Amino acid sequence: MTTNEVLQIVNENLFAVWFLIGAALVFWMQAGFAMVEAGFTRAKNAGNIIMKNLMDFCIGTVVFILIGSSLLLGEDFIGFIGKPGFDIFTSYANFDFSGFVFNLVFCATTATIVSGAMAERTKFSSYCVYSAILSAIVYPIEAHWTWGGGWLAQIGFHDFAGSNCIHMVGGTAALIGAAILGPRIGKFTKDKSGSVVKVNAIPGHNLPLGALGVFILWLGWYGFNGAAATSVPQLGSIFLTTTVAPAVATVVCMIFTWVKYGAPDVSMCLNASLAGLVAITAPCDVTDCVGATIIGAVAGVLVVFGVWFLDNVLHIDDPVGAVAVHFLNGVWGTLATGLFATNTAPGYSIANKAGEEITGLFYGGGFELLGLQIIGLVATMAWAAVTITIAFYLIKATLGLRVEAEEEILGLDITEHDLASSYADFALASNINNFSSGMIADLPENPVPIDEAVPVELKSEGLAATDVPTGLTKITIYAKQSKFDDLNAAMTAIGITGMTVTNVLGCGVQHGRVSKYRGVDMAMNLIPKIQVDIVVASIDPAKVIAAAKKALYTGNTGDGKIFVYNVANAIRISSGVEGKEALDNYYW
Amino acid sequence: MTTNEVLQIVNENLFAVWFLIGAALVFWMQAGFAMVEAGFTRAKNAGNIIMKNLMDFCIGTVVFILIGSSLLLGEDFIGFIGKPGFDIFTSYANFDFSGFVFNLVFCATTATIVSGAMAERTKFSSYCVYSAILSAIVYPIEAHWTWGGGWLAQIGFHDFAGSNCIHMVGGTAALIGAAILGPRIGKFTKDKSGSVVKVNAIPGHNLPLGALGVFILWLGWYGFNGAAATSVPQLGSIFLTTTVAPAVATVVCMIFTWVKYGAPDVSMCLNASLAGLVAITAPCDVTDCVGATIIGAVAGVLVVFGVWFLDNVLHIDDPVGAVAVHFLNGVWGTLATGLFATNTAPGYSIANKAGEEITGLFYGGGFELLGLQIIGLVATMAWAAVTITIAFYLIKATLGLRVEAEEEILGLDITEHDLASSYADFALASNINNFSSGMIADLPENPVPIDEAVPVELKSEGLAATDVPTGLTKITIYAKQSKFDDLNAAMTAIGITGMTVTNVLGCGVQHGRVSKYRGVDMAMNLIPKIQVDIVVASIDPAKVIAAAKKALYTGNTGDGKIFVYNVANAIRISSGVEGKEALDNYYW
Amino acid sequence: MTTNEVLQIVNENLFAVWFLIGAALVFWMQAGFAMVEAGFTRAKNAGNIIMKNLMDFCIGTVVFILIGSSLLLGEDFIGFIGKPGFDIFTSYANFDFSGFVFNLVFCATTATIVSGAMAERTKFSSYCVYSAILSAIVYPIEAHWTWGGGWLAQIGFHDFAGSNCIHMVGGTAALIGAAILGPRIGKFTKDKSGSVVKVNAIPGHNLPLGALGVFILWLGWYGFNGAAATSVPQLGSIFLTTTVAPAVATVVCMIFTWVKYGAPDVSMCLNASLAGLVAITAPCDVTDCVGATIIGAVAGVLVVFGVWFLDNVLHIDDPVGAVAVHFLNGVWGTLATGLFATNTAPGYSIANKAGEEITGLFYGGGFELLGLQIIGLVATMAWAAVTITIAFYLIKATLGLRVEAEEEILGLDITEHDLASSYADFALASNINNFSSGMIADLPENPVPIDEAVPVELKSEGLAATDVPTGLTKITIYAKQSKFDDLNAAMTAIGITGMTVTNVLGCGVQHGRVSKYRGVDMAMNLIPKIQVDIVVASIDPAKVIAAAKKALYTGNTGDGKIFVYNVANAIRISSGVEGKEALDNYYW
Repeated sequence: MTTNEVLQIVNENLFAVWFLIGAALVFWMQAGFAMVEAGFTRAKNAGNIIMKNLMDFCIGTVVFILIGSSLLLGEDFIGFIGKPGFDIFTSYANFDFSGFVFNLVFCATTATIVSGAMAERTKFSSYCVYSAILSAIVYPIEAHWTWGGGWLAQIGFHDFAGSNCIHMVGGTAALIGAAILGPRIGKFTKDKSGSVVKVNAIPGHNLPLGALGVFILWLGWYGFNGAAATSVPQLGSIFLTTTVAPAVATVVCMIFTWVKYGAPDVSMCLNASLAGLVAITAPCDVTDCVGATIIGAVAGVLVVFGVWFLDNVLHIDDPVGAVAVHFLNGVWGTLATGLFATNTAPGYSIANKAGEEITGLFYGGGFELLGLQIIGLVATMAWAAVTITIAFYLIKATLGLRVEAEEEILGLDITEHDLASSYADFALASNINNFSSGMIADLPENPVPIDEAVPVELKSEGLAATDVPTGLTKITIYAKQSKFDDLNAAMTAIGITGMTVTNVLGCGVQHGRVSKYRGVDMAMNLIPKIQVDIVVASIDPAKVIAAAKKALYTGNTGDGKIFVYNVANAIRISSGVEGKEALDNYYW
Repeated sequence: MTTNEVLQIVNENLFAVWFLIGAALVFWMQAGFAMVEAGFTRAKNAGNIIMKNLMDFCIGTVVFILIGSSLLLGEDFIGFIGKPGFDIFTSYANFDFSGFVFNLVFCATTATIVSGAMAERTKFSSYCVYSAILSAIVYPIEAHWTWGGGWLAQIGFHDFAGSNCIHMVGGTAALIGAAILGPRIGKFTKDKSGSVVKVNAIPGHNLPLGALGVFILWLGWYGFNGAAATSVPQLGSIFLTTTVAPAVATVVCMIFTWVKYGAPDVSMCLNASLAGLVAITAPCDVTDCVGATIIGAVAGVLVVFGVWFLDNVLHIDDPVGAVAVHFLNGVWGTLATGLFATNTAPGYSIANKAGEEITGLFYGGGFELLGLQIIGLVATMAWAAVTITIAFYLIKATLGLRVEAEEEILGLDITEHDLASSYADFALASNINNFSSGMIADLPENPVPIDEAVPVELKSEGLAATDVPTGLTKITIYAKQSKFDDLNAAMTAIGITGMTVTNVLGCGVQHGRVSKYRGVDMAMNLIPKIQVDIVVASIDPAKVIAAAKKALYTGNTGDGKIFVYNVANAIRISSGVEGKEALDNYYW
Repeated sequence: MTTNEVLQIVNENLFAVWFLIGAALVFWMQAGFAMVEAGFTRAKNAGNIIMKNLMDFCIGTVVFILIGSSLLLGEDFIGFIGKPGFDIFTSYANFDFSGFVFNLVFCATTATIVSGAMAERTKFSSYCVYSAILSAIVYPIEAHWTWGGGWLAQIGFHDFAGSNCIHMVGGTAALIGAAILGPRIGKFTKDKSGSVVKVNAIPGHNLPLGALGVFILWLGWYGFNGAAATSVPQLGSIFLTTTVAPAVATVVCMIFTWVKYGAPDVSMCLNASLAGLVAITAPCDVTDCVGATIIGAVAGVLVVFGVWFLDNVLHIDDPVGAVAVHFLNGVWGTLATGLFATNTAPGYSIANKAGEEITGLFYGGGFELLGLQIIGLVATMAWAAVTITIAFYLIKATLGLRVEAEEEILGLDITEHDLASSYADFALASNINNFSSGMIADLPENPVPIDEAVPVELKSEGLAATDVPTGLTKITIYAKQSKFDDLNAAMTAIGITGMTVTNVLGCGVQHGRVSKYRGVDMAMNLIPKIQVDIVVASIDPAKVIAAAKKALYTGNTGDGKIFVYNVANAIRISSGVEGKEALDNYYW
């Protein structure tokens, strides 16, 4: 063997081991996605989001073994698909183990992107079916075009680690999925004509967990972008661009949100780090520090624009910003390759069909590479959009895509997984807080005409009036958390301007849903309830009671109770006014 | 040097570096265990669980330096132990640094498995002693048999990364420890004869944290299973099997729990991922994709069965499922090696004493390898069971194994570590929720005959009766959280069917336990209390007061207060009924 | 090529790949710092702390590209600085990509150490400026001395991975920053002369998160200490010392706190792991197992001493123990190199200017190396102290360093980032608990003379007296959480000895600060408030009301309300006493 042959074998072995370490780092990104998506959504859906992320990987593995891997990696058939086969079962000794694992973890990443955009309202069973379709067919075929020796690889399209094949495709599925699903209850306030008049924030429940997820993803990205490197300088340069782009994106986003919204937005900056990483993914091996800087800077603005655009123009509800991060920056990264590819990058090897080296527009390469990038982008996006739209509509027509409104309000943990709470020991304020942001217009109409259903006899009128010598009455209402917004609206309608809300636990002998925890019945003897205290003077207590009854009545035993108390006095601190006047204008 | 010699040296160096990277990944599993065990137990013990995991590694390191490492790695003595020695101190320049680190992190894993099964009720000092014994003696000796050149290595027993030597042994200790300790208060409801009549769920307090722990463990497992690989194809195949088995286990568990319990159980599926990983650990290098799939599928069912079997048949309380995951699947993985070992796996080298290659039963190898696996399993299990039983009984007889009931109720953070709360800023509902699951029968008898201790003079009777013109009285009771179940039982006994419970903070000048935080006194001026509101009509308020006094009395200043208020009216929303009738049947 | 040349090239490539993996692990430490610092501070500042950690890295990257990297790595100029330059932009093809990434992640670590010590009270904008200065100038210049071929490298000073250049420097900045900033409100209780009479604990809000951060840091440290290794034995030995020192430190700290404070302190032991890691960082490649053990043992005591010393002697408030961990143990590790360096460590190469090998004092090397270590330590510390002091005073004089007291009380998440809560769905007890630890003496004086501002007409006196036939009155006060301590002090002053505090949500039509979440207005219709219930008998209710008004009055609408109720009876459970007497001494 010549020295060069020895060095080549050694180099191959070295980078083959690094290839597997890289694959492990990409697997680790599953944890990052799970934490980001859990952290940036609500506590009542935390178990569900984690389960979806876990099953993306696990179901993905099963279908990737059965069909996906051979569609991607099998012998090329007219540039379009790999030849299906079962070498993994029939010819194990000669199987490409590393290639399988590596492509599997990339495939799972694509699937996982979608769970964030469709969070908090998608049926779990339907999600599993979607995930299987994407991992079995949609992803493997388009990835074959670029990475499996297909037609895009043949013409010189360049997507080193997947801005296009993974993030843009995942983002397309996320966008279409979120659009077909519709927004979460409470996200948009509509007027009577159905136009959105207000966009409401539904804050994530655990920002430190989400931030940890971003750090996990960033770490994993060194494997994601670097795993396929084949020389030390190339790997070093990839690490450099993969560091510079997200860092610049984050700084630009911080400045941009500071100027635009008045404060440096934490969760947006975390998104910006991811945006920079997505954008540098395609060109990570072919651009330089200048390119990485500009690509990152654009990504940092693009992600803010994307979140704004979906909220305010498209009115599509994407809880974690998956479309802004993955779709928009996937597109940007794919195009940026055509702008910033430079042969000063070590190991540069982009060439057109004629075998001539081509570089990006801004590095004097003209429009040839940019044109190829546009072709690859458009073709891949078209494939993904068409197949995933068909898939979602098929699922919608059969299993149904979305949970019932009541299930969405209660949360998917309890309704889809029989999991009472992902945070069993914590007092949660979630149900109340979630409903205080204008969701009323959005709630499904109550199917029972309540006025007829409950005879609202105002027999409490006399009682309340005669029993309150000071003219001040406290009304304490115990109700389900999910009824808070109805109650709030009803109170506002009769002129109540303030109330106090407390999270309490209701305890009754015969009550409580029985959920299961690891197969064991979990009797919830203590059921979370809200206690609403209202003190009235000029408003007749009977009117309050009647309105509350109307708002809360369903005819079932969990509807709640109302208690009436005398109040000896009331004082408003800011003015010192006492008695009835203390309550006249507002409460706090 | 010949080319082959050069390539061999290079290969050794490459895999020596990977070996250390793998060891770092196995260290990382400590974080995974800590998060899984903390997440799947209660908030009041979170600091304690983390401390146990941390000390498993740190104490383990100290004793492994002193004795464990030489028992494992020292010169073999009749196949049974390595020769004790202090080369690490006396002959540092020639010491096998990497081997030491690698074996240390594996040893610590074995010890850590046990902390989950013995969580929430074990004395911290006793746990430290147990951990030291296991790391110093129990593990090193049996690991020497298989990995240190001992008798099992000599006969051809195969356990590549530790289904048997680590997980089965850790699981055995977990099973014996949990059995000797007894269940947590509240886990099982017993009738008067002492038979378990009901299994109660005690849910973990932070599922996202637990899920993160599972992802951490899975990532670490690529190092755990892969670190000892010596060629690229072998490492690739190990990554493949280590991915396929847990993925299949998780999918199977999801389907199985969906069918069996009616919903896809989140925490069980997370356990199933670990079960699949444990099961593939022994055969990861010698089986193929078919083998990994079947091994994973069985593991996914086995873990559900194991949890059920411990709960419902053995009545052993294993809070995190350590026995089901590590013991059962450790056994399964060890046996599965004898069933699914195939020489299509790259680098296959299992041979019997005669030096003949032997494969698994299902791959035509007959019963020879399976027989060896059974021998290794039984011998190792016997060693672990005997030594660990002796150790636990010795500890029990000297230091004591279990904390007092009162300490268990308050939580180990405050009682063992003087840590007021691991979640200082959060309002916790834990103490209340924990006690609402039927633990009454299980509570130790109150040593003070309460009837005599407090003179229950019902002088409140007159007051209450005359002062309530509407006939409705609200009784507000402030008490310690730990007294809730006593109070609940007392109220039920006198016919109270509903109450409202609120977490409040009691503030008093001379009160509060002084705990220490980082050496600084932390005066808890605000002490967590529960406020229980009960409104009664037909039940005499004096009766409620008397019953509450009896339930809460200890004679100390923290016993609480009771206040009585008039209620002007009460309305039940579901029926519209007012006044006394509103309270007749139930509360909510 | 000779065989040796081939082997050398191969070895270089192998360790060049490991070098980058190590850099990725060091990047990962950013996540560790973020989690440690978030977990060990309060929930109301969690988003801010994470943002600071994120921006340390991202701003650091930008300024390191522009200036820092060339000051550190550029051509040496008289031993003091590297020659500034822009090779990263102008000569990308020949740039040292790996060296840049590696040094960047180390630089960011230095900056991040400071955020913990200055947590919970530093202006975000000022922090960003500090971070930029440290990463652009302070760190690169001193790191050049040791690692860039500067004068310390030339004389033989040894700091393998940064006990001195990183941890001591970061710790110095932390110490100076925390001292200039002053303590958090509530940390120290002062008497009228301004002397500290009491040190108060302000516990971290999420210990499991902090523990995860410690595990992350420990894992990352294998890269931090190991990345620059160049042979397998050297790397193995580094892994060994990097494992032994923190493990021993943790065990020693556990025993030490157990003896000194009566219980094994969880958060201190977590700090001790880090302390051991910091101390072994400089000598990790040149000491042996004995050295690592002693270095670790000292570190485990030193960290406890450091926390105590800052709290009780210097009265400097360092929320996460950064000074004790990084400064003290950075100093210790630097000196320990001069004590424990031994040529039994593989690849040992410390030599003086004359090229003679020198070893540590305790290994027979005399004082030469120790002298060099002291020179390096003192010079680096002087540089860091002077430059960072100038920087902090410049920032203080221009932007200001510290937020307003009101902002600190509300928390930096809402005031600096418009982030209502990092834990949106959780009921937090933070604001209340934070203020219950003696902060009164520390609060800024109320600028409004309240006696004059609000006419305290005691017209409620009559009402309350006549309306309470039992002589028992309940006064319910609703107020801002931040006013609790004022209220508590006022109540104590008039003889109230107990009260009940509940976290409630106030809901009013026209209220609520509008914060932004990801650019979307988030109307907080439900504002967190506290409800304080006081029952009085012998104290005139009017007096309570007057005192509460005085304590809470600002003249703004959010000042709150007071309600008065009759109480029918009160019973103290511990004595059975009823009526007025039940309230006489204390409450619970």
